[in-house]
Amino acid sequence: MIVAPTLHDQLRAARRASRGLAAADRDAALLSIAAGLRRDASELLAANAADVAAARAEGMEAPQVDRLALDEQRLEAIAAACELVAELPDPLGRVLDGWTLRAGPHVRKVTVPFGVIGMVYESRPNVTVDAAALALKAGSAVVLRGSSSALRSNRALVASMRRCLPGAGVPEDAVQLLDDPGRESVTGLLRANGLVDLVIPRGGAGLIRHVVENATVPVIETGVGNCHVYVDEGADHAMAEEIAVNAKVQRPGVCNAMETLLVHAAEAARLLPTLVGRLRRAGVEVVGCERTRDLCPEVAPATEADWDTEFLALKLAVRVVDSLDEALEHIERHGTGHSEAIVTRSLASAERFRREVDAAAVFVNASTRFNDGFEFGFGAEIGISTQKLHARGPMGLAEMVTYKYLVEGSGEVRG
Amino acid sequence: MIVAPTLHDQLRAARRASRGLAAADRDAALLSIAAGLRRDASELLAANAADVAAARAEGMEAPQVDRLALDEQRLEAIAAACELVAELPDPLGRVLDGWTLRAGPHVRKVTVPFGVIGMVYESRPNVTVDAAALALKAGSAVVLRGSSSALRSNRALVASMRRCLPGAGVPEDAVQLLDDPGRESVTGLLRANGLVDLVIPRGGAGLIRHVVENATVPVIETGVGNCHVYVDEGADHAMAEEIAVNAKVQRPGVCNAMETLLVHAAEAARLLPTLVGRLRRAGVEVVGCERTRDLCPEVAPATEADWDTEFLALKLAVRVVDSLDEALEHIERHGTGHSEAIVTRSLASAERFRREVDAAAVFVNASTRFNDGFEFGFGAEIGISTQKLHARGPMGLAEMVTYKYLVEGSGEVRG
Repeated sequence: MIVAPTLHDQLRAARRASRGLAAADRDAALLSIAAGLRRDASELLAANAADVAAARAEGMEAPQVDRLALDEQRLEAIAAACELVAELPDPLGRVLDGWTLRAGPHVRKVTVPFGVIGMVYESRPNVTVDAAALALKAGSAVVLRGSSSALRSNRALVASMRRCLPGAGVPEDAVQLLDDPGRESVTGLLRANGLVDLVIPRGGAGLIRHVVENATVPVIETGVGNCHVYVDEGADHAMAEEIAVNAKVQRPGVCNAMETLLVHAAEAARLLPTLVGRLRRAGVEVVGCERTRDLCPEVAPATEADWDTEFLALKLAVRVVDSLDEALEHIERHGTGHSEAIVTRSLASAERFRREVDAAAVFVNASTRFNDGFEFGFGAEIGISTQKLHARGPMGLAEMVTYKYLVEGSGEVRG
Repeated sequence: MIVAPTLHDQLRAARRASRGLAAADRDAALLSIAAGLRRDASELLAANAADVAAARAEGMEAPQVDRLALDEQRLEAIAAACELVAELPDPLGRVLDGWTLRAGPHVRKVTVPFGVIGMVYESRPNVTVDAAALALKAGSAVVLRGSSSALRSNRALVASMRRCLPGAGVPEDAVQLLDDPGRESVTGLLRANGLVDLVIPRGGAGLIRHVVENATVPVIETGVGNCHVYVDEGADHAMAEEIAVNAKVQRPGVCNAMETLLVHAAEAARLLPTLVGRLRRAGVEVVGCERTRDLCPEVAPATEADWDTEFLALKLAVRVVDSLDEALEHIERHGTGHSEAIVTRSLASAERFRREVDAAAVFVNASTRFNDGFEFGFGAEIGISTQKLHARGPMGLAEMVTYKYLVEGSGEVRG
């Protein structure tokens, strides 16, 4: 392109492209994208290598560079993920409900595409393809806005995907990248009511806050998870240890990992020394309340801010509580409504925890790590919603569509 | 109260009050509210009379005064509506789905309350009680913000409702009124993320725009309906007339009334003179395109703005189109995604109209006036959503709740 299109033109093009999508062979388009990514591998990896080199030169830290970097294996995984999405059942045209009005007409409530979905996300370039694949499968055009550190990679990935669409009968404008260097296009995207039907932010707390505070289009918040595991009085210690270690250690950098462990005072003396030792051996930095430190002197003191921090790392805050009530109060005050677990043998405690904890997923005797679209069997997920509107918890294809009512009569009017 | 509570205190009190609501006898509270409204009738009508007198003194026009005014009959209808809501099935605790994870734990997806729902609305005081009743039935506390012209009425209605709650075991803070004279509290409500789970604006286009543009909490837009009826080539003229007259005349001031009639050129010469005559005899001011005026010289010219105007009155714009495509384009360009109807004998036209019109409810051979929670059999409605997130079309009790996932294991961890 010689002249960069304006945001408005891009969004209108996306809207136009969205119109025929429900009827197009979206699965063929996804298979074609997968093939294209493999075919374009050397070009894609070269673009990514340039991003990685620039990031290193600017002093980006190693874990972030790792998130940014692609190699042949990762690219193959991205292509394979497109093929998996193509295999999933079509979320469109499902009759969710149907009945006959007293006046005579028949009603069907049928799933239909949103239209245009905006995605605002951070460095990992696999999100560029994942999000496009899920949006296309759900019959919507997608407008992507990744981070500037991944701009070369995203440009190459989007160009590769767009080349594959027309062959499958899908207009290339169904996948768009906002690639201006500044923030104007994001701000415009977030306020494009009438052109954009939904924006999904995916990334850190700062990104999500920026989107929520600036958007006038509907938003689904994903992600921030300050998740707790509470070990109840009388809980099975072996089970508590397994769940706590899994929730913290198995993949510490994700939103459904545990950040704070709450332990009933009746179990603390027997449970904490062993469990803290095991966590520390697994590389976890443990901070705790005074009572935790009395039992485990090697534990550093937790600050007030620690209870509100999503560490996303091998770090854990531990607090001893005197009752289920105190645990519920702690979770109410510090939790983000993501994933909360209780380890208990008590039916009454389980029931109160399930009823009173206000979170997307509440676990009894299972790891918080199960709050995930793949584990839930959705086959894919665009994120985990922590808001209560439309989608709560893992957001799969079923949540990436809306519905309309189709009413068929034979001339009925309202009396 | 001697000192007005700050908004923050009010919202926190609403949040605290919301906690036990799901388990409280919400139906008893609604019956008690209905009885209280009848008991307090003279006080309520006196407060309303003061609002009406002030409105008249300030020169409010007659239709607005009528919307503001209560009398014994209207108050009885408001009380009876609370009793009807009490009779409806409980929207909470419904198991929407359930399955077993591969790893073993069982999942249930269960409806739960939002928590705190904000309502921002215009003059009609019945909304004050309707919204509170629906929110309480759905297990949420409600924070009400009516118009300043109804302030005395709303204060009296809310005081009456709050007096009835404790007797039914519901904290009085579950129903709150924001009654400051300025706009600070509305702005605060719209940005109270973490304290307010959902805001529903109900009123004119200006109010809805203000809420959408200023809210950072999730919003469900209700209401603006620029609705069309398209009479296809070959349509039954008697049916077209009945539907057009019903959609325009039966209740012109509501969002699902027709605002523009589109007629295929093949039918215009035979249909329009009769239909326009009938509409005019029913008191409708008809404006039209040039081709309409060639057929009906008594019709005034439609301006460009007329195609985009929700008249909410006995006024109609009429346009002759050459094809279904032209009708679809007109609706795409000018419609608000509310209620759109086709009158046709053609299966192909019906199918294209259903598929291509992007609206909450699409009608084939039936009046747009059926897009309504009561007509749909929902028993009640808080509004008609024109957005695509969470609720689209009539929003009843089923849409006034959210869900959470309850996961029960026996110590399972993620591999």
